[in-house]
Parts: sequence; C-alpha cells; structure tokens
Amino acid sequence: VSPDPILEGDLRAISRAATRIENRHPEAEALLKELFPHTGRAELLGVTGPPGAGKSTFTSELVRELRREGRRVAVLAVDPTSPFTGGAILGDRIRMQAHHADPGVFIRSIATRGALGGLSAAALDLTLLFDAAGFDSIVIETVGVGQDEVDIAQLAHCVLVVLVPGMGDDVQAVKAGIMEIAQVFVINKADLPGAGKLESELRFLLSLAAPEIQPAIIQAVATAPSGIRESLEAARQYLMSHPPRLGAVQRWTTRLREMVRARLMARVPAADFETWAQAVAAREIDPYTAAARILHA
Amino acid sequence: VSPDPILEGDLRAISRAATRIENRHPEAEALLKELFPHTGRAELLGVTGPPGAGKSTFTSELVRELRREGRRVAVLAVDPTSPFTGGAILGDRIRMQAHHADPGVFIRSIATRGALGGLSAAALDLTLLFDAAGFDSIVIETVGVGQDEVDIAQLAHCVLVVLVPGMGDDVQAVKAGIMEIAQVFVINKADLPGAGKLESELRFLLSLAAPEIQPAIIQAVATAPSGIRESLEAARQYLMSHPPRLGAVQRWTTRLREMVRARLMARVPAADFETWAQAVAAREIDPYTAAARILHA
Repeated sequence: VSPDPILEGDLRAISRAATRIENRHPEAEALLKELFPHTGRAELLGVTGPPGAGKSTFTSELVRELRREGRRVAVLAVDPTSPFTGGAILGDRIRMQAHHADPGVFIRSIATRGALGGLSAAALDLTLLFDAAGFDSIVIETVGVGQDEVDIAQLAHCVLVVLVPGMGDDVQAVKAGIMEIAQVFVINKADLPGAGKLESELRFLLSLAAPEIQPAIIQAVATAPSGIRESLEAARQYLMSHPPRLGAVQRWTTRLREMVRARLMARVPAADFETWAQAVAAREIDPYTAAARILHA
Repeated sequence: VSPDPILEGDLRAISRAATRIENRHPEAEALLKELFPHTGRAELLGVTGPPGAGKSTFTSELVRELRREGRRVAVLAVDPTSPFTGGAILGDRIRMQAHHADPGVFIRSIATRGALGGLSAAALDLTLLFDAAGFDSIVIETVGVGQDEVDIAQLAHCVLVVLVPGMGDDVQAVKAGIMEIAQVFVINKADLPGAGKLESELRFLLSLAAPEIQPAIIQAVATAPSGIRESLEAARQYLMSHPPRLGAVQRWTTRLREMVRARLMARVPAADFETWAQAVAAREIDPYTAAARILHA
C-alpha cells in the first residue's frame, strides 16, 4: 500500500486504509510506520458524556464551527459494538447527515472491541492516519463514563464533556467520574429546567478539586444552535495555555506502555485453560494457584 | 489472617478482608486461597444500565425482595473513581440507607480502577469472599455501558439491565451494546410516557437476535415499588434453565485467562518509556518500532 494518495488527502484511499487499520490487517502497521513522520499537526478534540446528553448533535455543530474557520475535519465516533453485526451501532450514515456533501469532513465510526486495550489501539492509529492525511482538526466522540473515555482523554489534546440537566441519582457519580478528564464542560439542553442547578453543582465539585483542574463551563443548546462557538473558544483557550506539543512526551509515554502491554498480551500461553477451569469449578484447585501454574508452565 | 471469623459470617472480619482485597494487600491472596474451597453456593445477580435509569433504587428494592425470602444478601456496588479521594463516589453510606439497620445485608462500594483488568480482578475476589462468608445472594451493581459491564456480566449468573424511557439519540446504541449481556430487561419508571415504545423497540431488536438471546422484559416502577418481584422471578426462571453450575467451567476459563493476563502485565519491562516517548514525539522513531524494541530489550 502506497502512502502517497493518503498524504495527498484522497478520501477513498483514506477510507480503505481506515478499514485496514480497524481490522488489524497485516499491512496496516507498515503503512502507519510510513505515515508517522507526517503526523503531529492536527488538533485532537475529544467529545464525551453520558448517553442522552446530545453529543451527536453537539459534535455536528462543532464540526460546522470548525468548517467556518476553513479547517478540514475528521470525526472518529466510537460506538458500542453491535451484538448482531459485530460492527458499530450508529454508523456513519445516520451520523451527521448535515455534512454528507462536504468533502472537507470525513466521518468514521468504529466499534468498541471487547478485548482489553483494543479500542484505544485502533483509535490511536486512526488519529495518526487522519493527521497524516492533512486534516486540521480531529474530533473523537465516545459514549459513556468508563475506561474507554479515560483512554480517549489520554489521546485528545482537549476533552469536552457534554452533560444535560436532570439526569437523576447517578449524576454525582457521572460528573465526578469524568471530572478529571474534562477541560471544558458543556451543559447542553441548557433551556431545560435544572441547567442552573447543574452548573452550581459542578462549580461546587470543582471548588473541592485541585486548582489545576479548573475546566470551563459553557451553557449550550446544540439544537438551536447556541453555545457552540463559546465551547470551541473555551477549548482553544485551554490549548493556548496547554499546547499539545508540551503534553506529547507524556501522551507517548502512556501510549508506548499500552502498546507494549498489548504486545505482551498476545503472548498469553496457549495453555489448556478449560481443563484448569474444570479443576477450579470442582474446587480441586484455587484459581490463584491455577493462574500461577499456567504462567510458569 | 484467620479465615474462621469470615466463614462464621462475622461482619467486621468480612469488612476488614474486603478492604485488604480491594487494596491488593499482600496477605489477601493467601486468605482467598483458604476461603476458596468454601465458595460456590451463592447466586450472583448483576444489575447494570445507563446513568439515570434508577439502578440504585431498583437494587435496593431487589434486596428487599431477597430479604423477604430470608436470604442473606451482599451488595457489591462498582462506582466510578473519585478524582479527589481516589475512592468510590457514591459510597456505602448514602447507598440504600433502607438496609442500614439490617445485619442480613452487607453493602460494599468499590471504585473502578483505571488499570486494565483492575476492576474485574477485585470484583471477582470480593464475590468469592462474600460467597465463603455465607451470603446467599450477591448483587453486583455497575453504572454504564462499557467494558466494565461486560466484565461484570462474565462474573454474574444472571444480569438484569435497567433501562428508562426517553433516553434520546443514544438509546439505540446503549440498548444494542448491552443486548447480549442481558438476561432480564427492566423498563424502570414505566409510568413515564414512552415505556410502551421502549418495550416495542426492544422486542424489535430482539426479533433480529439469535433465538438463544431472548431476555425477559419487565415493566417496573422502583420507587412505587412495582415490578420488582416480577424482575426477580424472571431472573430465577433464567437460573432454573441455566444453572450457574453448568456455566462455571466457561466462567472460570474466562477468569483464568484474565488472571494470567494480569500477571503477565505485571511483567511489563521497566524500560525508560519516557526517553523512548521523547524520540517518538520528536518523530525520530515511530511508536510501532519503539514498542517492539522495548519489548525485545
């Protein structure tokens, strides 16, 4: 596979390469090695938050703002895996139809892999592909409050967390779980009752946090749209005071450690796990001793 | 540490052991080895679902039903980690105050660890502790739709997924992401508009699924409470046709593989990741080559 059409921004070549990267095609790594020297220019924005917060609409409007600045934009949407097709649920087609006809916007959905570390490895490689292909901004969108979101945060230069008023009991947990990964909080659907209360709660939680964790809080109504420009400006302000370049060594330290771990995982011994499991299920051996014996075999 | 007070159900001894297990105290594994022969009796029920679905209230009422049957119940609540304390967010104290004075209910919150596989290892060990301590039912509650929930599902004998009407755009993704881990769908807040529509959507999605994936669907209002007994009966019906004993070898196969992986991870070479990261950030070497060199060093 030649990297040239990708470096020239050929959308079909980029799309083909993305598929190979996602499927862990044997030639993908060689291609990524060739593309790597051409990376390091794009800004990586993360958008995340709990289900129902209106992230897709917000992302679509954020893309519109970036396009107004004349930037080419790639969107990487990370979806839960479909149990039926094995692929991403929402898919590219129903996502952000507003940008369908715009050749300056490239949208790709990938499915969360069940395997440990699977998501972040593919997502990292795809951002490098888009970066090499000359996209100025890369927006990574995830749904949730779990490990995937923390991984994405380690990848992005700035993370916007989209919340919505009136989420019920769990909102404390959700807010706090994502508190340290957020550089910008977007209170979406801010025309609903409770938006002011949510902002007060956030400000109270932030008052307990370390002074260096002080994300901006923006009220927005993505469907209007309003508050989108302000959200992007808050992100840019963060990037001005925390240039991606300065965080690069730390991000790569984390990524390299994960890449080495993933390669180690591929070396799990081809033991007869099921026979050991039978012995454990029959209480003939405890699982801790069994795991140690498998490893030392 | 003697296992005897734990086997006799001494709550203080159980609590101390749980803390050691969660903190990966060096003596925890020796204790778990001694407890292991006394495990295998408890039923493990998983409760999960997206934020705002009312899981805490549902779990509290489910515990009440189990208590009516005369069962001793342990609840293991898995929370996002607090960025400020490093501990679980919601905590034991504000959780299910209804059962505060009941010595037949033991509640423990643990924080999601950022580390790969950290959550599931601690959660598994805690369920073994509760099982050995003679609890008849163990309820594991998680918030979310991510990898943590899939891990919990691999641990529980039956998973109840709590949903709520009117979750917006993401609900398709959420539903499908948890479709294959659910044995019982609980449509909570079924007095809200849209409960019937949600049930129809679920039935449509299920009609596309393989015939062996056919979870029950129960309408409930946890705050009433209504639909709780029906949810528990649906879970019991599943457990009658899928006795935990029959799935034990498969569950232990998965767990042993993860335990071996976790032990392998602990062997990540003590390389100077930061120096390699500097070279990658400076584009002097690509990350794929760097990871391979660290591993082979």
